Amino acid sequence: MNNVRIGSKWCKLIYKQPLSTLKQGGDKLVMTEIDINHPVAMMTLNRPPVNSLSLEMCNAITSALSSIENEHPHIHSLVLNSSNSSIFSAGLDITELYRPDPNRLPEFWKSFQDLFIKLYGSRLATIAAIEGSAIAGGCMVAMSCDYRIISSNKITIGLNETKLGIAAPFWMSDMLIRTIGFRKAEIALSMGSLFLPEEALKVGFVDEIVSPNEVISRAHHQAEQWAKIPSQARVVSKKQLRQRYITELQKNQQQDIKQFCAFINDDDVQLSLAKYMAKLKNNS
Amino acid sequence: MNNVRIGSKWCKLIYKQPLSTLKQGGDKLVMTEIDINHPVAMMTLNRPPVNSLSLEMCNAITSALSSIENEHPHIHSLVLNSSNSSIFSAGLDITELYRPDPNRLPEFWKSFQDLFIKLYGSRLATIAAIEGSAIAGGCMVAMSCDYRIISSNKITIGLNETKLGIAAPFWMSDMLIRTIGFRKAEIALSMGSLFLPEEALKVGFVDEIVSPNEVISRAHHQAEQWAKIPSQARVVSKKQLRQRYITELQKNQQQDIKQFCAFINDDDVQLSLAKYMAKLKNNS
Amino acid sequence: MNNVRIGSKWCKLIYKQPLSTLKQGGDKLVMTEIDINHPVAMMTLNRPPVNSLSLEMCNAITSALSSIENEHPHIHSLVLNSSNSSIFSAGLDITELYRPDPNRLPEFWKSFQDLFIKLYGSRLATIAAIEGSAIAGGCMVAMSCDYRIISSNKITIGLNETKLGIAAPFWMSDMLIRTIGFRKAEIALSMGSLFLPEEALKVGFVDEIVSPNEVISRAHHQAEQWAKIPSQARVVSKKQLRQRYITELQKNQQQDIKQFCAFINDDDVQLSLAKYMAKLKNNS
Repeated sequence: MNNVRIGSKWCKLIYKQPLSTLKQGGDKLVMTEIDINHPVAMMTLNRPPVNSLSLEMCNAITSALSSIENEHPHIHSLVLNSSNSSIFSAGLDITELYRPDPNRLPEFWKSFQDLFIKLYGSRLATIAAIEGSAIAGGCMVAMSCDYRIISSNKITIGLNETKLGIAAPFWMSDMLIRTIGFRKAEIALSMGSLFLPEEALKVGFVDEIVSPNEVISRAHHQAEQWAKIPSQARVVSKKQLRQRYITELQKNQQQDIKQFCAFINDDDVQLSLAKYMAKLKNNS
Repeated sequence: MNNVRIGSKWCKLIYKQPLSTLKQGGDKLVMTEIDINHPVAMMTLNRPPVNSLSLEMCNAITSALSSIENEHPHIHSLVLNSSNSSIFSAGLDITELYRPDPNRLPEFWKSFQDLFIKLYGSRLATIAAIEGSAIAGGCMVAMSCDYRIISSNKITIGLNETKLGIAAPFWMSDMLIRTIGFRKAEIALSMGSLFLPEEALKVGFVDEIVSPNEVISRAHHQAEQWAKIPSQARVVSKKQLRQRYITELQKNQQQDIKQFCAFINDDDVQLSLAKYMAKLKNNS
Repeated sequence: MNNVRIGSKWCKLIYKQPLSTLKQGGDKLVMTEIDINHPVAMMTLNRPPVNSLSLEMCNAITSALSSIENEHPHIHSLVLNSSNSSIFSAGLDITELYRPDPNRLPEFWKSFQDLFIKLYGSRLATIAAIEGSAIAGGCMVAMSCDYRIISSNKITIGLNETKLGIAAPFWMSDMLIRTIGFRKAEIALSMGSLFLPEEALKVGFVDEIVSPNEVISRAHHQAEQWAKIPSQARVVSKKQLRQRYITELQKNQQQDIKQFCAFINDDDVQLSLAKYMAKLKNNS
C-alpha cells in the first residue's frame, strides 16, 4: 500500500528532528505523533481503504483527541490528515446504515455526534491537511477543524447526502452555512454538490490551496502559526464562537438520534442506499 | 399586449411535446401548466400591467401552489415566471396601502405573509425565471424560490421600501440577509438599493445570469436537475434550513400585521406614499 | 501637531459655507460640528496621541451622540473621524487594563459597552471616515457605524485582541461575524489579524476605499445620500436589524462585565499585557 505513510517520517522530514523525541501512539485506526519539545501534534486517519467512519473509527478519533488534550498540555495545534493521500475520508461507513443493527445504529450515530462535539470544540488549533477527497461525514471532520488546506489535485469536498437519498443533520447543515454562507450552503445541500479545490477556495469551504506535495508541510507551518497565539485567549475566543452550536446539539442529541434512526429505517431510504451500494460495487 | 405569452407554447418549445399532454389551469391571475408525464410544472404570474400583489393576487399564487403540491405528487419542480417579460413583479399593489380600507388592510398583509410561508416552505424545487425587474414584494417572491435565474437585460432586483418611506418587515429583511449576507443587506435595506443583474449575481442575490431569450429554457433545465434529486431527502434538507424562519413569522404573524397596519396608517407614511404615487403618475 | 485639524475648516471646505452657521461643541475629547441648515453633523475623536478609549473618552463619545440625537432633530447623518489623520483609534486605553483599579475597571467596561449600545443603535446614519488605523476597540467604533470609508494608505483595521492575550467580548466578535462572515471572522479572531485596506474591502470589513485626501469629503458625500432617505423608514429598518444584538448585550451586560473583569485580573493576562506594554515602550 503505497498510500500509507508512517507519519513519523513526515515529522522528521518537516521538523528535521531525531526520532528519539517522537512518540507514536494510538491504535491502528488513528495514529498520533507527539514531539515532547514541540507544540504541534499530528493525527493520521488510518482506516483503509477510504477512512469510512464506523462506530469504532469515530470513537478512535474522539479518544485520540482526548488523549492529546488531557495528557499533553504543551500541545496547542494539531495537523489532521489521512494515511491515504488520495482520500481524506469518504464519510460514514455505509454498512452502518444499510440494513442496520437496531441496537448499534443509535450508538453509531451518537459516536458521530460526539466526534463533532469533541473536534469542533477542541482546545487545540486544528488544521485539516486535505490531500484527498473529503465527502459527507468526512467533510464534517474537515469542517470541524479551525483551518483547511486542500490539495490542487482533482479531488472534491462537500456534503452529497441528498444524492444518496438522505439528509445531513441540522448541525452539519448549519456548520456548512457558517462555512460557505446560507445561499451557497442551501443550494449545495439541496443538490448534494461536491466542490473542486478552486471552487472550494472561492466559496470559503477551504482556506488555502497548495500543490499536492505541499499540503502536509503547509499544514504544519500553519499549525505553528496558530500555536504562537496566546493559547488562553485563542481558546476563549474559539469557545465564544462555537460553544453555542455544540450546546445546541447536546440539548437535542437524543432527538437527533431518534430522527436519524427513523429516517434511515425508512423503506425509501434503504432502497436509495441499496442502489448506491450497487453502484459502488459496479465501479470498483 | 406583446408581452403576454401563453405559457403552453413555451412548454411545447422547451419540451417538444404535443399539447395533448399539457393541462392548463388557474384563473386569470396565475396560469399553471402541468404535464402529466413530466416532473416540472410552470407557473406564470399574470396580473397586468406589472404583476402587482393585491390581496387577490397573493391568494391566487398561494392557492395555485397548494393545488400543484396536493394534486400532482409527480411534480417535483416549478418554474415561476411572469406573463410580462419586462417585469417579474413590481411588488405590493400600492392601492392596498394608500388610504387603505381598515378591514381589508390586515387581510391583505396576511395574504402576503401566507404567500411567503407557502412559497418559502414549498415541497417543490422552485426556480424563479426573472426576465424583468423584481421589486420589493416582487423581490420577496423571487427570494422565496430555491434558485434564481436573471436576464442580462437592464432590469433590477431588490427591496426599495425605504425610498417609499416604508420598511420591509423583519421576515423579508432577514431573508435578504440570508441571501446576500448581513452587511450587503443592511446597506441595501437602508438605502432602498436596487441591483442590476451583474451586481445581483456578484452579491449572490441571483444564482445565474443568462441572455434574455434563454431565461425560461435555462430555468426549465435547472428545474429538471433539481427534480432528479431524491425528493424526500431534498425536502427534509430544505425544511431543515427554512422551517425555523417560517415558524418565526407564524409565531409573530398577528403582531407583524398590527405593526404593519399601524405603520401604514401613520400620517408621514401616507404622505410618502402620496408623493410616490404622484411621481408614478407623472412618469406614466 | 500637524495631525490635529479644526473640523470646522473641513466643513467650510466641503460645504463652502460661512463659519457663522457652524456651531462647534463638545469638550476636548470629542469635537462636534453642527450646521443649523444642514442634515450632516461631524464628530471628531480627539484624545491624542492615538484616541485610546479610556472611561472618560467612551463617555464623551456616548454623550456627544446623545446631544446630537436629542437636541438636533434636523441632523440625520454623522461623519465620524479622528483629529489624528494617521490613526482612527488604537482601541482600549491599556492603562485601564494593566494593574487596574478594581472599582474603576467594571465602570470602564460598562462605558465601553454603552458606547457600542449608543452608536450601533443610533438614529443617525453614521459614516466612519477611517483615515488611519482602527484597532481592537477602535475597530469596534468603526464597525458600529452604518458605512465605512477607508484610506488607501498603508493602515490596518481589525480585532487583534488574541495577540495581546485577551479575547474580544461576544458582542464584538458577533459584530465581526456580521461584518465579514463567520469563517473570515473566526480565523481573524483566532489569529488577531489586522487587515490592510484592499483586503478589508475584499472581505467587506469596509465599504469603500479612496485616496487619503478624499476620505473626509467622500464620507460627507455618503452622509448626504443617507440623509436623503426618509428618516422614519431608515431608522425602523436599522432597528429591525440591530436591536436584537443590542438587546442581547443589555440582557447580559452585568455578566459580561464580571467575565471581563475576571479575565483581565487573571495573572497570565496581566503578564501578556505587561509584555505588550514593554514592546510598545521599546517601539516608541
